[in-house]
Amino acid sequence: MRMSELSSTTGVAVPTLKFYLREQLLHAGERTSPNQAQYDDSHVARVRLVRALLEVGGLSVARAREVVGAVDAGSLPLSSVFGVAQRAVTVPAPLADDAPAPTEGDRLVAELCAARGWTVYPNNPGLALAARVLDTYAALGQQRLHAVLEPYAEAADLVAGADLAAVAAAPDETEMTNVVVVGTVLGDALLAGLRRIAQEAESFRRFPLPEGVPAPGSATTTDEDC
Amino acid sequence: MRMSELSSTTGVAVPTLKFYLREQLLHAGERTSPNQAQYDDSHVARVRLVRALLEVGGLSVARAREVVGAVDAGSLPLSSVFGVAQRAVTVPAPLADDAPAPTEGDRLVAELCAARGWTVYPNNPGLALAARVLDTYAALGQQRLHAVLEPYAEAADLVAGADLAAVAAAPDETEMTNVVVVGTVLGDALLAGLRRIAQEAESFRRFPLPEGVPAPGSATTTDEDC
Repeated sequence: MRMSELSSTTGVAVPTLKFYLREQLLHAGERTSPNQAQYDDSHVARVRLVRALLEVGGLSVARAREVVGAVDAGSLPLSSVFGVAQRAVTVPAPLADDAPAPTEGDRLVAELCAARGWTVYPNNPGLALAARVLDTYAALGQQRLHAVLEPYAEAADLVAGADLAAVAAAPDETEMTNVVVVGTVLGDALLAGLRRIAQEAESFRRFPLPEGVPAPGSATTTDEDC
Repeated sequence: MRMSELSSTTGVAVPTLKFYLREQLLHAGERTSPNQAQYDDSHVARVRLVRALLEVGGLSVARAREVVGAVDAGSLPLSSVFGVAQRAVTVPAPLADDAPAPTEGDRLVAELCAARGWTVYPNNPGLALAARVLDTYAALGQQRLHAVLEPYAEAADLVAGADLAAVAAAPDETEMTNVVVVGTVLGDALLAGLRRIAQEAESFRRFPLPEGVPAPGSATTTDEDC
C-alpha cells in the first residue's frame, strides 16, 4: 500500500507518519520510485504500536524508540525485553541529595524484597523508584504513607502474576515480546485508571458527601454513571 | 529566612526557587526591602512538595500548579481534592478515533464497576483511561491482555483501601488533603516501581535464564542484590 493508504488504515495523518519515519520509530517502506514507497502489514502494526506508546502510554519519542528497538532485536532474552520496557516507562527518580549511600527508602525496599522472596538484579529500575518515593514521603513529613507499602506490594504481586500469565499465554517468542512491551507500557496506565475509580468509590464509603451534593448513581446522574 | 537559606534548607538552587515563584508554584515571601523577602516554614514545605511533584511524580509545571492550587483551596471537599490530584497525574488518553460512542473498552469497564460495586461520578478520569488502554490492547491485536482486568481490579481495590486508610489516619483536614495529594501523585510511581520488581522476580520463576547468565543472588552479584 502507499503512504496515503497506510494513513487511512491506521487513522494516523501523513505528516505524522513522516515524523515516525524520520524519528526511526517506523521502518522504511520498499522504494518503488524516487518519490514513492510501498508499505505492508508490518508497517500497519508498527504505526499502531508507536501511536499507543506515545499517546496512551505517554512515552517520549526517545523512549518509544528504545522500546521499538527492543521489539526489533527479537533475539534478546525475554527478561532483557522486560528490562527495556520497564526502563522506558520508569520516570527517572533522582536521589534526594545525589547521595550514593543507601537511604531509609532503600532499606525499606530491601526488607520488603526479602520478606516477599523477590529476587532481582540490582539494576531493576523499580528498586530505586520505590525507594525514592518512600524517601520523598518522609521528606514531606508523610511517613504515615509508609504504611501503604505492604498492601501495595501485595497488589504488585497480583499484577505481576497476571502480566506473566499473559506473556506465557502468547503462542511464540515474537508475540511474547509484544505482550511484554505493550503490557508493561500500557499496564501502568490501566492500573492507574482502575486505582482512580477504586479510590473514588472507597472515598464515598469512608467520607460522606457534603449535604446537598447528589451522590453518583442518584436520580440526577444515573444516565451517565459508571 | 532569606532566599539563600531557603535554598540551603531545601537543597533547591536559588534560580530554581525563582522559577517556582514566577510559575506560581511557590507563594511570595514577605517583602522587607525592594530586593529582599523573608521566607518561613510554609515555604520550606511548599518547595519540598513542588520538587516531589515535578521530579519524583514527573508532573508538568501546569499540572503541579493545579495540584498546589487544590492544596491551597483548603475548603474543597476531600473528594474534590482527590479529583484534582487524580486529573493531574492522569495521562490524557485520546479516543482511538475521537469517537464519542461507547467502545468495547467502555463496556468492559462499566461491567467491571458493576461487578465490584464501584460507584463513581461519570467524570472520574480513571474510567476513560482504563477504557482507552483496553481499546488499545484490542487495536494492537493483544486482546489476550484483557485477561489482566480482573486481577488488576483486585489490586486496585487493595491499593485504594490502603490510600484511604492513610487519609483517615491524618489528624486534621489540612493533613488529609496533603496525604491525598502526595499519596495520589507519588503512589502511582511507588506502585509502578513495585510492579517492576515483582515482574522481574516472577519472570525468573516462569522463564529460566539462558545458560551461563548468572542469576540474581548468585556469587557474582550478591553484594549489590535486592
